[in-house]
Amino acid sequence: MSTGKDKLLFTPGPLTTSPAVKAALNRDVGSRDAEFIGLIATIRDRLLALAGVSKAAGYEAVPMQGSGTFAIEAALTSCLGEDDRLLVATNGTYGDRIGQIARLAGKRVDVVKIAGDRRIEASDLEQRLRGNCPSTHVAVVHCETSSGIVNDVPAIAALARATGRKSIVDSMSAFGAIDVDMRSNDIQFLISSANKCIQGVPGFAFVLCEREALETCEGRSRSLSLDLHAQWRGLESSGQFRFTPPTQAMLAFATALDELDSEGGPPARLSRYANNQQRLVRGMRELGFATVLPDSLHGPVITTFLYPEDPGFVFDTFYEKLAERGCVIYPGKLSDIDCFRIGTAGHLFEQDIEILLTEIANVAEEMGLAVR
Amino acid sequence: MSTGKDKLLFTPGPLTTSPAVKAALNRDVGSRDAEFIGLIATIRDRLLALAGVSKAAGYEAVPMQGSGTFAIEAALTSCLGEDDRLLVATNGTYGDRIGQIARLAGKRVDVVKIAGDRRIEASDLEQRLRGNCPSTHVAVVHCETSSGIVNDVPAIAALARATGRKSIVDSMSAFGAIDVDMRSNDIQFLISSANKCIQGVPGFAFVLCEREALETCEGRSRSLSLDLHAQWRGLESSGQFRFTPPTQAMLAFATALDELDSEGGPPARLSRYANNQQRLVRGMRELGFATVLPDSLHGPVITTFLYPEDPGFVFDTFYEKLAERGCVIYPGKLSDIDCFRIGTAGHLFEQDIEILLTEIANVAEEMGLAVR
Repeated sequence: MSTGKDKLLFTPGPLTTSPAVKAALNRDVGSRDAEFIGLIATIRDRLLALAGVSKAAGYEAVPMQGSGTFAIEAALTSCLGEDDRLLVATNGTYGDRIGQIARLAGKRVDVVKIAGDRRIEASDLEQRLRGNCPSTHVAVVHCETSSGIVNDVPAIAALARATGRKSIVDSMSAFGAIDVDMRSNDIQFLISSANKCIQGVPGFAFVLCEREALETCEGRSRSLSLDLHAQWRGLESSGQFRFTPPTQAMLAFATALDELDSEGGPPARLSRYANNQQRLVRGMRELGFATVLPDSLHGPVITTFLYPEDPGFVFDTFYEKLAERGCVIYPGKLSDIDCFRIGTAGHLFEQDIEILLTEIANVAEEMGLAVR
Repeated sequence: MSTGKDKLLFTPGPLTTSPAVKAALNRDVGSRDAEFIGLIATIRDRLLALAGVSKAAGYEAVPMQGSGTFAIEAALTSCLGEDDRLLVATNGTYGDRIGQIARLAGKRVDVVKIAGDRRIEASDLEQRLRGNCPSTHVAVVHCETSSGIVNDVPAIAALARATGRKSIVDSMSAFGAIDVDMRSNDIQFLISSANKCIQGVPGFAFVLCEREALETCEGRSRSLSLDLHAQWRGLESSGQFRFTPPTQAMLAFATALDELDSEGGPPARLSRYANNQQRLVRGMRELGFATVLPDSLHGPVITTFLYPEDPGFVFDTFYEKLAERGCVIYPGKLSDIDCFRIGTAGHLFEQDIEILLTEIANVAEEMGLAVR
């Protein structure tokens, strides 16, 4: 199936991974063999360390098969009991999805809608949480992948803590690049995925949990597959997944964690992504494209651009011509704005952004776009 | 992490895969790019063809992220409505699990327990289904991985059809080797996984569905991730997964399907597995080991052996010594019998079975076992 050199993925994930990460896939290991059991344990410990915590400090890492959404659902449906009530603050598709998952599962949930071009601040929830709002848990997306905005998780978690609520953070497009300390931020559940900023391949996601909060999840899930507590107990008692794990994706993830360390950890990775993103925006503006958001709201992972006003711009054509030239971009996901997205995370460097900008210039010329 | 040559996996999965399948993992593709959309469509069509059906004939293939259990849960929780009632016939752990998933999800379910050393026959359900049992759906495991027994799916499905019930078949350890025709057998839902007899790597599973039955699933799931109908509608409307798919596992699966074709399809694969299994049993008996089941009940995929009576036999030691020598076997899963299992599926050939038998002889000698 190989078509030679892979396209570069300027998407929110699956991302372009390094040659070493892909090479690590090229093995068969027994899912219940000692080597793999050791690998799972190492990965769980290293994930906790990335969140500034450890088992000794009272935290647990629970990997879960499937995409990030599977792990979000496992966390929400396992941690919310009959007497609990979730408050979700959302400024995009992924925040909305948290509410949708909880509602569908029959959980009690309230949603605070924030405009898609605004960052969620603690002040957006202050009145409710300081008032007599019945919520027991607060959920928010860290980096809203539909726009690229990084919400103010530390302040929101601090407010939740101050008002006696538990915090659930969907850190899908942030964890591994944007530093987060679960203990100092008092976050009870933090969810992310293998194929995001840690730069593994898709196949599993993970929930990092304060153990005390995780223990309250026992027997709450109506799903066998997505039972967070049962998954944890299985891992603790045998060191193994309850059900077949994606062994190759786990092997690749261990290599991805090594590479994150070698790069200098999340701060160095954030710096590379931010540099990619700034180079992208500067180049796109030179080509005549405008961003949807002001620079102050841009996160490092993904950036949203307006369709140019030129009537000759057809996104599908633009996309296909770029893909033919080896650059995969991403459609928009804002309900009321015609836009597209370009990701700057993954195994991508400034020279890759320059390749993309050159190809966008070529395609714009080929399409006769008056963008400049 | 590579330790050089991989161990041979004599397990029920993840299995040993071919070099070409593993090599196909070594790529990055965009999960919403045209190439990957084409790959998904091809895989869906080829899975239906393997089950003797097609979209034109009224069938649909719905891949689902996660392990086989995730797809079983997606099928059960999506197809059983409030007025429905499931009858599960079980002779092992995987049959029991079907009942467990349905009960946990609040579905109405009755379980018929058959002894673990007996094949499930249509006659086991005849009285209930011909009487006034209120079941609307009948579920059974095709090859019960805890023992290796292949249950009589064609006769059970025929009885279900004759008495107006829908059939759900967990064909995890059978599909791709043991031929099954969904139409002539009138099976509504058949579930299997990427890393079983088709010999791909773990990361996703799939539900093959009669479209008319699938259409009745709309709006029934309380899970966003495991909603079989929504997953199907997403695939039909955009050609894409709703949530990030395991792109590399899908690439490897396409190669695995090519190799299944080259080998001569399920009949040729069944013949190889059966030959492996017969060679294994012959060799194990020569070494003094006894099978739990009589030959007439042995399936081609996995075989259960009794612990030898020698008090010097400690399974963990036996396992570890074999693993050190590059052969991974599997613990038992029968509740009342001390046994272990050896798998004969995957990219394994008679010479691999001979390697295993030689190493078992060496380990038995090293442990001083009086098995012979």
